[in-house]
Amino acid sequence: MPHLTLEYTANLASFDPTRALAAINAAMFDSGQFSEPDIKSRAIAVGNFQVGILQNPRAFVHLRIALLSGRSSAERKELADAALAALGELILAPRGMEIQLSVETSELDRDSYAKTIVHG
Amino acid sequence: MPHLTLEYTANLASFDPTRALAAINAAMFDSGQFSEPDIKSRAIAVGNFQVGILQNPRAFVHLRIALLSGRSSAERKELADAALAALGELILAPRGMEIQLSVETSELDRDSYAKTIVHG
Amino acid sequence: MPHLTLEYTANLASFDPTRALAAINAAMFDSGQFSEPDIKSRAIAVGNFQVGILQNPRAFVHLRIALLSGRSSAERKELADAALAALGELILAPRGMEIQLSVETSELDRDSYAKTIVHG
Repeated sequence: MPHLTLEYTANLASFDPTRALAAINAAMFDSGQFSEPDIKSRAIAVGNFQVGILQNPRAFVHLRIALLSGRSSAERKELADAALAALGELILAPRGMEIQLSVETSELDRDSYAKTIVHG
Repeated sequence: MPHLTLEYTANLASFDPTRALAAINAAMFDSGQFSEPDIKSRAIAVGNFQVGILQNPRAFVHLRIALLSGRSSAERKELADAALAALGELILAPRGMEIQLSVETSELDRDSYAKTIVHG
Repeated sequence: MPHLTLEYTANLASFDPTRALAAINAAMFDSGQFSEPDIKSRAIAVGNFQVGILQNPRAFVHLRIALLSGRSSAERKELADAALAALGELILAPRGMEIQLSVETSELDRDSYAKTIVHG
């Protein structure tokens, strides 16, 4: 861990998921809370989505940061704010569109977490 | 928030994710618990899946409703039941198939949640 | 439940998600904690991913096991370890690649969980 999952609606044609993952991983590394190889991120384009009940031009980008349990609220908030800032620099809304950008942190149960590394 | 994630197995050929998202967003809005533009839903077709260990004709549809922490169990249950009812009306099982339809609610940590809106 | 979600990075060309789902479902069934048809698994290939901030050859496989709330830490750890062992047998790292294999367990809120079965 951390495990990061970035979702973005597919109507954001100019959004570059590769660049976004690089930016959020750098933000996580710069926090000093993680060792470099442990930061695992993936991005998922959301083709089928609906915001609210109207057909206004809307989009969203959402990031989940999953952390082993035990961090303080302040540490979690620092990570969420850093990721939000990193993503905010990469998002440009097309004219007339409203994009909701959000970041959550969640906890991975430490007692049952199991991990191994396979080397080739 | 809320963030809704709808998964459906790809063997449900007649399942219409666009219609399903419209129905669950309407159910969330009708609950009176949310402002209209905050309801953000996505649907994901699951191509690789396995139910149990037998090869019987089976499928599933699963919805996660992620809510900022602090709602009562009764409020959460009301949302889950409303979504289940909305989805149930849209699902028709092919002859001989068993479809498991389930709804969970989960909490988004309020203290670390970060959000901004980008306008075009 | 349980709901299992298996993610694997798309650079693992030899990874067989169908076989992996069969193996983890068998491990869940063999635990004796679940009835057979309730074990619902899906696999997702992650095309856009980034591990750390370097460009080393890296990959990951991650499984989330979501369980109705109330199980003990020992029961959860037993499930995670069994799944890790089952997956470990199926993963062969290409020469020079490092694969991180991890399993988490999470809880589904029991009070608000809603489910029904639709028969064809």
